[in-house]
Amino acid sequence: MDTPSGAFYKVATVLLGLAAAVVSLFALGLWADAKTDAEPVAQAATAAPATPHDATDHNVALPLESFAGVVAENADELAKAHAPYDAALSPVPNGKVVKVEMVMKDRVVEIAPGVKYRVWAFDGDYSAPGPVVHVREGQTVEFTLTNGGTIPHSMDFHAARIAPNLAFKDVAPGESFTFRFEAGDPGVYMYHCGTKPVLAHIANGMYGAIVVRPKEGLPPADNEYVLVASEWYLNGDGVSEPASLDMKKARSMMPDWTTFNGYANQYVTHPLTADPGETTRFWVVAAGPTLDTNFHVVGTIFDRAWVNGDMTSAPQQGVQTVLVPAGGGAVFDVTIDDPGMYPFVSHAFAHVDLGQVGLLKVGEPTGTHTH
Amino acid sequence: MDTPSGAFYKVATVLLGLAAAVVSLFALGLWADAKTDAEPVAQAATAAPATPHDATDHNVALPLESFAGVVAENADELAKAHAPYDAALSPVPNGKVVKVEMVMKDRVVEIAPGVKYRVWAFDGDYSAPGPVVHVREGQTVEFTLTNGGTIPHSMDFHAARIAPNLAFKDVAPGESFTFRFEAGDPGVYMYHCGTKPVLAHIANGMYGAIVVRPKEGLPPADNEYVLVASEWYLNGDGVSEPASLDMKKARSMMPDWTTFNGYANQYVTHPLTADPGETTRFWVVAAGPTLDTNFHVVGTIFDRAWVNGDMTSAPQQGVQTVLVPAGGGAVFDVTIDDPGMYPFVSHAFAHVDLGQVGLLKVGEPTGTHTH
Amino acid sequence: MDTPSGAFYKVATVLLGLAAAVVSLFALGLWADAKTDAEPVAQAATAAPATPHDATDHNVALPLESFAGVVAENADELAKAHAPYDAALSPVPNGKVVKVEMVMKDRVVEIAPGVKYRVWAFDGDYSAPGPVVHVREGQTVEFTLTNGGTIPHSMDFHAARIAPNLAFKDVAPGESFTFRFEAGDPGVYMYHCGTKPVLAHIANGMYGAIVVRPKEGLPPADNEYVLVASEWYLNGDGVSEPASLDMKKARSMMPDWTTFNGYANQYVTHPLTADPGETTRFWVVAAGPTLDTNFHVVGTIFDRAWVNGDMTSAPQQGVQTVLVPAGGGAVFDVTIDDPGMYPFVSHAFAHVDLGQVGLLKVGEPTGTHTH
Repeated sequence: MDTPSGAFYKVATVLLGLAAAVVSLFALGLWADAKTDAEPVAQAATAAPATPHDATDHNVALPLESFAGVVAENADELAKAHAPYDAALSPVPNGKVVKVEMVMKDRVVEIAPGVKYRVWAFDGDYSAPGPVVHVREGQTVEFTLTNGGTIPHSMDFHAARIAPNLAFKDVAPGESFTFRFEAGDPGVYMYHCGTKPVLAHIANGMYGAIVVRPKEGLPPADNEYVLVASEWYLNGDGVSEPASLDMKKARSMMPDWTTFNGYANQYVTHPLTADPGETTRFWVVAAGPTLDTNFHVVGTIFDRAWVNGDMTSAPQQGVQTVLVPAGGGAVFDVTIDDPGMYPFVSHAFAHVDLGQVGLLKVGEPTGTHTH
Repeated sequence: MDTPSGAFYKVATVLLGLAAAVVSLFALGLWADAKTDAEPVAQAATAAPATPHDATDHNVALPLESFAGVVAENADELAKAHAPYDAALSPVPNGKVVKVEMVMKDRVVEIAPGVKYRVWAFDGDYSAPGPVVHVREGQTVEFTLTNGGTIPHSMDFHAARIAPNLAFKDVAPGESFTFRFEAGDPGVYMYHCGTKPVLAHIANGMYGAIVVRPKEGLPPADNEYVLVASEWYLNGDGVSEPASLDMKKARSMMPDWTTFNGYANQYVTHPLTADPGETTRFWVVAAGPTLDTNFHVVGTIFDRAWVNGDMTSAPQQGVQTVLVPAGGGAVFDVTIDDPGMYPFVSHAFAHVDLGQVGLLKVGEPTGTHTH
Repeated sequence: MDTPSGAFYKVATVLLGLAAAVVSLFALGLWADAKTDAEPVAQAATAAPATPHDATDHNVALPLESFAGVVAENADELAKAHAPYDAALSPVPNGKVVKVEMVMKDRVVEIAPGVKYRVWAFDGDYSAPGPVVHVREGQTVEFTLTNGGTIPHSMDFHAARIAPNLAFKDVAPGESFTFRFEAGDPGVYMYHCGTKPVLAHIANGMYGAIVVRPKEGLPPADNEYVLVASEWYLNGDGVSEPASLDMKKARSMMPDWTTFNGYANQYVTHPLTADPGETTRFWVVAAGPTLDTNFHVVGTIFDRAWVNGDMTSAPQQGVQTVLVPAGGGAVFDVTIDDPGMYPFVSHAFAHVDLGQVGLLKVGEPTGTHTH
């Protein structure tokens, strides 16, 4: 077991470095790791087997077990080595027209430490989700899809008002296609491949977020992050060899992994950050393909929640958890004064258990551990 | 393969007429068919088997497979021959009192091309859902239930404020029962049999929609459609012989088919229509019995969304997808300028895959195909 | 079969006292029992087997069957003997600081008639959910957790704005821990153990509700009830011996029982009450761990629905069903004039079937039976 030296690595250690416990910890959710020390966890692992309701005794036929069994010894290194999807929202480009290019490509990517999956997704730094598009209300998006894959693909922007049969049409492998639309409705929207079977194309990673920033009236925020929630259905463990889509599981809504920005728990190992007193905004898309996301930030309350991404009406205020429907989006503001580690989750806890959790690190938290 | 002559049949052909491909196409979602030509699809079917993540290789134990295996050869004719449930909202009847009569009857109906199901449902042109009731806020509904079935039934109107033990009481086979209620709350509501086990009665088709039109303040719409979303749980494929309810599947929330107005994909083959520039209103009820519906129209954005069917408060504006809870309703306005084929779906894509998709045809669309 | 003498017991009899029918009745949902007489039910039981779509023929591998098979003969007595969780909201304590103490304890409790489960939950009169906390906006909660259990536990209050790593930290068995927070945001919030695996701790009963009463502007209500919806995942029937958590079922979202306030159908046997013309308020938390609750009251319409528990903005009006997301809350007002039995449910009917139904008894209802 390595001995990390900095604060960053201490978090990682707390999260993943408990030799024997790491398997079940990782499998069962990392939440508490960020907020407590290792002893209670070890106690739990020790105490639990004595009772028939031992929650760590979950040797069920899920890939988590296979994964854990095979790569547990280096799971922490893998998690730390993973370069997280950059959730920070980039500034809006200048100009009346914003050019966006995406290249589709079949790739093998990691969706959890040591778990490989054959996506139909995006070329570039990140594979799934695709790049975040950020425009201002009223700008025109000129979008070019280049199909570097092996089967037809297309791109459906929920932010566009445009005839789907013309704009979201299938593009054959090796071909490119360009269309334009005006981003006239503020909010955060899903984009995704609309080629059939759409369930398969979304499940294989072909989605992302477009933020249409309101022209006026948006309260200031100090930090802005984009989170695309999605779930994965694997036909194998992805460890011994890359997994592919299991359509039966996809239809049955039995995911193996749930993620923010495509990789399980990545913002637990690599937390998002804010300073005390700052306002942090989350632009959230639930890509599915099927599951909704009950967005919640532990230890705080949403000061503003633009439910369903309606940024023309007044946001809700003072709410704990808001459902973001699969295929939809919502925007959330939190202002946190006290330094600490604040997990964000889908509060449908079966999904946290499968990877839909991250951390917002506010300042330099103190606690039973100095994270 | 037949050679349809009119625009209508061309759509149908694109949708269902690709000889070998039709099986998987139908099973996996028809969306893209409306917006592209046959070649990419064929390519996909060809290209996919070469990869381990072949989405068309979904030979799983779902009725879709059985259905496809048995009746694939005439699935397109069956889909075209099916007389779709009339989704157009009829005018409000005159008078202070609106008389509504429903006769319950055990029937065998089609819920997808070639798939027969033994409903406990409604006599008349349509069997499940029952007839749309349309009244104006303040009118009185005088409702008569006649039980032409074989077991007791009842009818629970969500639009009514009335003692359920008196009004929604069981009516024995051969009996009739009448009650009155004032429709005082505008919105779109579910009605359904409330006889236990209610899960079984709803799952067997005993539901429908009542629209209570606001007395004033409703923006004008050029087209108004009613969509009742629901799911079906079959104890067989429904092809070799009519299927009945599988209660275990119903409890496990594992549907075989999901539909708008009781028949899978019926508005793909028989699109709803609008003219360019018109406002189209969808009155949506999610009948369940259990699954929510994430309503979304591809290629546009809801100009107005009366979430939860609250038509007293201001609607949301500029939203992409809104969850309609099972047992609830919502109302959506879209104004579409460009001719085209605009699919409407539940964006929980496992459900699109099982039949919860239709098309809104705006004008005479052009594209890679002239539909 | 006993012969109850009072109105109360008559309801119970109608609900549970039909000798042969009781097994399937109980298993399949009690709703209709409250509103009709026994004959149609008996007819149903008789008529149904003759048809292939016999909904009572549900001999599936769910604990309901085991339960019914083993304890059917005294299920009605057990249900009546059960002391229901007191749903009535107590007054707000005086003072600037409200002290709340909770003791965690491993216990065996009943979650349905004759069904025992090993919770990790609360000492005191009720075990799961824990006690309702009621404070006024602006009061400070001083909370003490004493861990009388066997593994570490913690408590995460959604109503608190506080660093989770400091306040919601794990408390070892035998230890106590106190923290304070100001309840500054009105609404109804979940509290729950946040120790990992959180899915297991919530699934084992470690949750409850805290009501933060708005300082001003809340319309008066005559009756106020708190309902915590949750689901249970059992590794056995719980009848022959107490069941424990089945993590595989929990991850798969396949519950055995769904409840309001921890016990299936308890407010069917022991209805909540109101007088005609009174306003009744439901403070609802969906504890999950994973399933949302589509709250609905049969026979009426919500006059006010504070969706997501936002009590700063205006409530929705005139809505039938509102989804309360797992991990969230909402508040509902109904004003019912007519005496009667009004069931409240999650209108996702698979869940009603598993126990998520209760009755609001308004006045002294009359009907085909005098309840």
